[in-house]
Amino acid sequence: MKEKPLILVTNDDGIVAPGIRALVEIAAKFGEVVVIAPDSPQSGQGHAVTIMDPIRLNKVSVFPGIESWECTGTPVDCVKLATNVVLKGRKIDFCLSGINHGSNASINILYSGTMSAAMEASLEGIMSLGISLLDYSQNADFSASKIVLEKILQKLMVSNGSKPYLLNVNIPNVPIDQIRGIKTCRQAQGNWEEEFMEAKDPRNQTYYWLTGKFVNYDKEEDTDLWALENNFVSIVPSHHDLTNYSALSSLSYFNEVDVYG
Amino acid sequence: MKEKPLILVTNDDGIVAPGIRALVEIAAKFGEVVVIAPDSPQSGQGHAVTIMDPIRLNKVSVFPGIESWECTGTPVDCVKLATNVVLKGRKIDFCLSGINHGSNASINILYSGTMSAAMEASLEGIMSLGISLLDYSQNADFSASKIVLEKILQKLMVSNGSKPYLLNVNIPNVPIDQIRGIKTCRQAQGNWEEEFMEAKDPRNQTYYWLTGKFVNYDKEEDTDLWALENNFVSIVPSHHDLTNYSALSSLSYFNEVDVYG
Repeated sequence: MKEKPLILVTNDDGIVAPGIRALVEIAAKFGEVVVIAPDSPQSGQGHAVTIMDPIRLNKVSVFPGIESWECTGTPVDCVKLATNVVLKGRKIDFCLSGINHGSNASINILYSGTMSAAMEASLEGIMSLGISLLDYSQNADFSASKIVLEKILQKLMVSNGSKPYLLNVNIPNVPIDQIRGIKTCRQAQGNWEEEFMEAKDPRNQTYYWLTGKFVNYDKEEDTDLWALENNFVSIVPSHHDLTNYSALSSLSYFNEVDVYG
Repeated sequence: MKEKPLILVTNDDGIVAPGIRALVEIAAKFGEVVVIAPDSPQSGQGHAVTIMDPIRLNKVSVFPGIESWECTGTPVDCVKLATNVVLKGRKIDFCLSGINHGSNASINILYSGTMSAAMEASLEGIMSLGISLLDYSQNADFSASKIVLEKILQKLMVSNGSKPYLLNVNIPNVPIDQIRGIKTCRQAQGNWEEEFMEAKDPRNQTYYWLTGKFVNYDKEEDTDLWALENNFVSIVPSHHDLTNYSALSSLSYFNEVDVYG
């Protein structure tokens, strides 16, 4: 680790969201921070990349003394622009994405622009954290999150030369003195039970708007949802290998198929 | 399995892409097909969902005798509308997504709208296949892909009561008599080496446009990239659990952190 690590900060709620401001404050204690974040909210963008359209990138003054850029693309676009344009040729030591307004625990990692940005950075060999507070509101209180994040970064800074993990960090929405600690855990099995709001526009045409509630099917104590429900911070080490290894042997019958028989 | 299974067909190249036409032709041999696909190309959308905007859904006549809907949303939106609106209350037996114009092997699964649609269906307990041909062109030849797909579906139809797997199927771009067979395999470790095209718009403002080339770092014979390079069809059983289980023990030091000490 260098004397002053280079820390890329991004998010999916947009560069003016309170969550990224909290993140920048803490990150700046640990190294040189460069912010590259979307110019508008990008929640639910998952691992989307902009390939059919051009992207704009503009230097902005949002955080005093911190080099900051806003981008018209997705969170993953921000990371690609960071590694290939803004910070090209420089070694990025950490990517911190967030602090997200709302949970990215369980399968929310799939939909989350916050976590996809962190995953994109991890594909480049960068130690990457997505950090989320379990409060969707714009006026969420990030004071406990900042304390927790500082503790986590202190631990990571001394784990010199560690593998570049991808960590999905979720923080319960309670005051710091009610947080019972940190738990490393696995992603719980849950799902969204969706309903679409169906309505008519001013021209009497039907439209649909996604809504729904999250349901936890997995009550085991080694999961992120259990940790959060019990006021622990959850850390799920995550990765980009989606292979279902345990299914490989069950499907070996495909290897016998004569494709042109 | 019912006498006539209900098959949801979707894609990310849009409802008028040649690849989905090829898929509908084969799917219709096996069951009742309902198509719900994007009204425009959605490549690279990953697992994006539309949460900040309304979505339109219109019944269209694209495939003779097949119930078809086009949707203004992402591939994942299409699947959510299928399960929650169009086919609400009906058991969907299969979700077939594709045939994608271009590879979704290796880490392309992360960026792929085709595979994200299939994954979304698999979250609902539906046996789901994303199918891709290694040819990005609009005039790709799907004749070999159709033969391969029919063989795969024949196998799946007899695996009555099988678990609802999520399968990432990629087909090499060669004539059928050069396809050597099918291989179940793991997702190879590869990455995109990106470059952004940087140019000026008519108002002399800079824009960036994503480009790049895929690099395979993983030459092992049990990978999808090896199979495809050797003219095998690759099938990678995939899943939505992104937990990096092997990292859990290395990170147990986090469990000792005193968050408010």
